[in-house]
Amino acid sequence: MFDFKITHNQKNKKYRTGIFSTPHGNIETPVFMPVGTKASVKTLSPDDLKKIDAQIILSNTYHLFLRPGEAVIKKMGGLHKWMNWDRPILTDSGGFQVFSLGEEKGFTKNKEFKTQVKITEEGVKFKSFIDGQTHFLTPEKVIQIEHDLGADIIMAFDECASAKKTKKYYEQSMQRTHRWLERCKKEHEKLSKKNKLPQALFGIVQGGFFKDLRIKSAKFVNAQNLPGNAIGGLSVGESREKMHEMIETVVPHLDDNRPRYLMGVGTPEDLFECVERGIDMFDCVHPTRMARHGSFWDFSGRHSIKKSEYKLDANPLQKNCECYTCKNFSRSYLRHLIFENEILGLSLMTIHNLHFLLELMREIRNAIKKNKFESFKKTFLKKFQKKSNE
Amino acid sequence: MFDFKITHNQKNKKYRTGIFSTPHGNIETPVFMPVGTKASVKTLSPDDLKKIDAQIILSNTYHLFLRPGEAVIKKMGGLHKWMNWDRPILTDSGGFQVFSLGEEKGFTKNKEFKTQVKITEEGVKFKSFIDGQTHFLTPEKVIQIEHDLGADIIMAFDECASAKKTKKYYEQSMQRTHRWLERCKKEHEKLSKKNKLPQALFGIVQGGFFKDLRIKSAKFVNAQNLPGNAIGGLSVGESREKMHEMIETVVPHLDDNRPRYLMGVGTPEDLFECVERGIDMFDCVHPTRMARHGSFWDFSGRHSIKKSEYKLDANPLQKNCECYTCKNFSRSYLRHLIFENEILGLSLMTIHNLHFLLELMREIRNAIKKNKFESFKKTFLKKFQKKSNE
Repeated sequence: MFDFKITHNQKNKKYRTGIFSTPHGNIETPVFMPVGTKASVKTLSPDDLKKIDAQIILSNTYHLFLRPGEAVIKKMGGLHKWMNWDRPILTDSGGFQVFSLGEEKGFTKNKEFKTQVKITEEGVKFKSFIDGQTHFLTPEKVIQIEHDLGADIIMAFDECASAKKTKKYYEQSMQRTHRWLERCKKEHEKLSKKNKLPQALFGIVQGGFFKDLRIKSAKFVNAQNLPGNAIGGLSVGESREKMHEMIETVVPHLDDNRPRYLMGVGTPEDLFECVERGIDMFDCVHPTRMARHGSFWDFSGRHSIKKSEYKLDANPLQKNCECYTCKNFSRSYLRHLIFENEILGLSLMTIHNLHFLLELMREIRNAIKKNKFESFKKTFLKKFQKKSNE
Repeated sequence: MFDFKITHNQKNKKYRTGIFSTPHGNIETPVFMPVGTKASVKTLSPDDLKKIDAQIILSNTYHLFLRPGEAVIKKMGGLHKWMNWDRPILTDSGGFQVFSLGEEKGFTKNKEFKTQVKITEEGVKFKSFIDGQTHFLTPEKVIQIEHDLGADIIMAFDECASAKKTKKYYEQSMQRTHRWLERCKKEHEKLSKKNKLPQALFGIVQGGFFKDLRIKSAKFVNAQNLPGNAIGGLSVGESREKMHEMIETVVPHLDDNRPRYLMGVGTPEDLFECVERGIDMFDCVHPTRMARHGSFWDFSGRHSIKKSEYKLDANPLQKNCECYTCKNFSRSYLRHLIFENEILGLSLMTIHNLHFLLELMREIRNAIKKNKFESFKKTFLKKFQKKSNE
């Protein structure tokens, strides 16, 4: 279990295809994982997700811990059974949420409940963004929650430090994240002994945008010899170039024989650039969130369905697209649904955007297998002009 | 086309089963029609609607006239093609909306745009609730719009007068509605000559809660000899008993050989009581709206999924229910989705409620065919205790 088999790679190239095996089935990599924060990929049913052939979905420990609480999900037979999803699931540890929701900007509507995040060696004290109740999360507690949820892949508890901090802060934070990883690993090994279904713990590389810290962190995380390694903290608003630089810095220090998961990243451009640099797994709320705001991708880039030129457009969102949305509805009708805030519009746009990204990833895998990744990337990105008409 | 064939009835009983034929297929009656106000049955795709075997859906002329405008839908090939629904559609004339949205209570959020409805013999002037723009709808204009939309069944333009008016007002309003019906019929006959697909115009009986007016109106509407007769103005807040009384007053004056459509009515109790009194067609936003508020029906009545007792309830909304929701999800998970405002929760609850009502109507038809309507009604309503825990 949790074997990672590389099925195709090329000499002197970082990109590869692989198969990661889990108790709920195999995952072909590189893979994009749709995000189901609160145990639901927003607007879609499990049937919808299977129709677009999502291989694995992500859910969030932080949100499920706060509501309904991991005890409910455990009693209901675990996350898979509860949400009726029999394919693999990955749970994020909540590290990103605890810290990002602690930033003031996230609380404009709930100022009375400032999370007041307090980080100590032991763990993190914070106030719930829902009701202001105080919670204390430790690495051990997070692993206990993730065991109760029962996902196939569980993430270690890390600190995803704000982009505004000093290098000194990043270094201290990273060192603490490393110590937390050791505690996560220990707790995971303890709990795993009584597990019915095995779970794979992934560690997370941190270190901000400092090469030396990233190298230290990559070496440390890699040395834990876990089934997979993740790279965190690179989706926090820095430039795409800096993100690429950090990936290039980190990847050589993460063993090839285990999957590399880049957290929170996933536009079409990102998939090409990061797969090329050795990333195997992605997740991002972008395709689902932009769908709910009325935006979609076609081969020419990103567009807003609200544009007046679509009012009488009988074409599908993207020609020859095989998704349910494109096979059945015109841009004209979708534009109407989005303008009228009809929920059907949100789910139809979501289906298309996720299908677009998953299909792109299938094509990327095929291109790698045929030794045509670079030419496919070039052709695709040439057409994909990053139009931004919103 | 638009033939109504009674397939089963009983001596001295008003209830019957029948088949109403339309260009987009036959409709078995009695039938419940899900409401798709803005060309979408809220939260559901056409596939979802076919899975619960909706025979016909309703859409609203008033809303589609305001946005996107009937010209858009006509250019896109008509309502069926635009919304990808190849089964029958009925369009309401907008009469109910023009007048009900003119009442102040509907405008708490948009007080600056009071609709200022002005009714003259010629038609109705009103301000759009969307942007305050002035519109003028006449019977001829409404029929033109409904021809552009292209539904199988189109409703005549009527005035659905507020429950607060005097008898004198009701009588004058009814007489005007009758004159409008003649104008609708004339316009419809004129436009029908160039129609590719025939459309059936239904007239609407009005007259408030006054027996003598209702009888006059029923006789007048019936004498127009249209393919179907509707009863309007009975879903406006009067008691169920008064509604039954009015139906009993009207039905004897509407020929048996044409379907009778009771507008805006459709709880489980209503279906039994009104089918028994000779109604063949129903529509109501209730099952879909209550779903979005987290309420559902099972055989014991109406319940709110938010009740704490459902937190750890592994049962489906209703035992042995064959809908997608009940076959795949527990009350515990649905409760979570509704509390978290997850859109999936809204669509899953909608699927169940509509399935519940459509399945009930199938059972009612079967009971009528087996001469067991009355015993089925008694058994069902005995269990269905109208629990109201919300």
